[in-house]
Amino acid sequence: MFKKKKKCALGIDLGGTKINIGLVDEEGEILERTLVHTDVEGGAEAVIGQIMNTGNELLSEGQYTLETVGIGLAGQIEKNTGNVLFAPNLKWRDVAIKKQLQETWKVPVAVLNDVRAAAYAEWQLGAGKGCNDLVCLFVGTGIGGGIVTDGKLLTGDTNSAGEVGHMVIHFNGHLCTCGNRGCFEAYASGWALAARAREKIVANPKKGSTILDLSDQTIEKVSGFQVEKAYRQNDPLAIEIVEEFTAALIAGSVSLVNVLNPKRLVFGGGVIKGLGDLLKPVHEGIKKQALKSATRQLEVVQAQLLTDAGVVGAALYAYRHKDK
Amino acid sequence: MFKKKKKCALGIDLGGTKINIGLVDEEGEILERTLVHTDVEGGAEAVIGQIMNTGNELLSEGQYTLETVGIGLAGQIEKNTGNVLFAPNLKWRDVAIKKQLQETWKVPVAVLNDVRAAAYAEWQLGAGKGCNDLVCLFVGTGIGGGIVTDGKLLTGDTNSAGEVGHMVIHFNGHLCTCGNRGCFEAYASGWALAARAREKIVANPKKGSTILDLSDQTIEKVSGFQVEKAYRQNDPLAIEIVEEFTAALIAGSVSLVNVLNPKRLVFGGGVIKGLGDLLKPVHEGIKKQALKSATRQLEVVQAQLLTDAGVVGAALYAYRHKDK
Repeated sequence: MFKKKKKCALGIDLGGTKINIGLVDEEGEILERTLVHTDVEGGAEAVIGQIMNTGNELLSEGQYTLETVGIGLAGQIEKNTGNVLFAPNLKWRDVAIKKQLQETWKVPVAVLNDVRAAAYAEWQLGAGKGCNDLVCLFVGTGIGGGIVTDGKLLTGDTNSAGEVGHMVIHFNGHLCTCGNRGCFEAYASGWALAARAREKIVANPKKGSTILDLSDQTIEKVSGFQVEKAYRQNDPLAIEIVEEFTAALIAGSVSLVNVLNPKRLVFGGGVIKGLGDLLKPVHEGIKKQALKSATRQLEVVQAQLLTDAGVVGAALYAYRHKDK
Repeated sequence: MFKKKKKCALGIDLGGTKINIGLVDEEGEILERTLVHTDVEGGAEAVIGQIMNTGNELLSEGQYTLETVGIGLAGQIEKNTGNVLFAPNLKWRDVAIKKQLQETWKVPVAVLNDVRAAAYAEWQLGAGKGCNDLVCLFVGTGIGGGIVTDGKLLTGDTNSAGEVGHMVIHFNGHLCTCGNRGCFEAYASGWALAARAREKIVANPKKGSTILDLSDQTIEKVSGFQVEKAYRQNDPLAIEIVEEFTAALIAGSVSLVNVLNPKRLVFGGGVIKGLGDLLKPVHEGIKKQALKSATRQLEVVQAQLLTDAGVVGAALYAYRHKDK
């Protein structure tokens, strides 16, 4: 008698430097996994080839039946076709990845934004578990987000919803990487921490000496990480920068809370990992500044999942949407 | 043989000065209607009595069968019970209006925020028709909003979603009526127009002479309406104020577009009625400042429904939610 094969999904986190691929079961457990270096220079064809080969290798042991494929990447994905319209990290434009993977593996394929995939995992298995209305904020180099309202991941009209880093929190303010001014991430992200530190060090090198000492005396090496380190050493300039950062983090959170009225705000990403103790003052600030009606039951928590959130989120999303 | 009675809903727009009640059919057509002065001083019991009496009068002709009741009011409504937690205009706290109306009329009753009711009507019958992802912005004395995502009116965790007037667009900026600083409505509402005009007139009375002339030389009489009038006369101060207002309207819209990625932004309310020609520069500003991925198909349009939107919206909402 044959043993019935276990069902699995391929979860793929496609980044500009590496591809993280795993076989994932319906509970979000990773069964097998591989990490490969992304052949960006080879173009879309080469990268899709890498995905197919790695996926087939993982599947070749034959213990599992492939049910579906989920792939998350940093880029704009067309809602109905799953085509990648634009992915600057990968140097892709108009790549029909969904169609190609579907033809290869003959199963439903879901293509989604990598931040949304991570938010989906956080919702299903992490700090957002059991919650129907939540906002995930990933504060790393920039700010990414994923929004769940009424038990559904928000996609918007053209699959672009959740770009919380580009809410305007200070119009006519600091220039953002997107070209606009005053964006949330121009005040409350890793790159904003670094930019503010550099400006202030140039304006007052003496005041900036601790941060500069931590950065090999090289202004170009100043990053959010050095600011955090100096902050831990009670450096006055770092404290000033982190306080401004915190005020901005509160301002953006207040906007989200007043507009979306989530039950839970989940903060993740590298900067929050380093500065997680800020979540208490952030929560207090939100309670003070947002509408009472919107904060009555609000929880502010730290994300729980680690580096595999992208793989697991893409796989779970694919499972839950394969019949749609 | 008896003629089958036509089904109807009672749609109620309960304001601090008047109660607008209508019998509404399933298509949103008002069949009968009455307007009564709200007996705020009589308290909740008196006002609910007014609603019951007026409703019964409308129903007394016996041509219609009551299917459901929808009531919109400016206040916080508890999601599951339909209790009014707080309604400052009515001076209400903890009023079990849903329960009382349900016991009276023995049909399902829906209680919702009045701005959300108007947005619902605009979505079902007005400028938002046929659209699954839209944001309605009502710019009057303040800014109210209603958000539809993926074909559902957003309520949030505690029924407070859609308070777009209290997004932060300029943190540490102008003080808002909510107690926070830098809110959208502290820059882009009727009261903000008046506040800016007064500040600028006090700072430079000569420059403010046109607006003052239109306000009986009385600074207290300056409102958004006078600013609009002076703007039509090409008064330099009014132009300056309206330009700042427009920039703020763009900033708040950019936040909404980047976060929610709606297909359509619908602008209504008294200020937009007077300054509707601003929607073109607002649309251009959004296209320039928001993410390309979020504006590819974005439409910016003016609201279509008039004063009865609250009645019709509450009734239609009740029809569509009566079996839930």
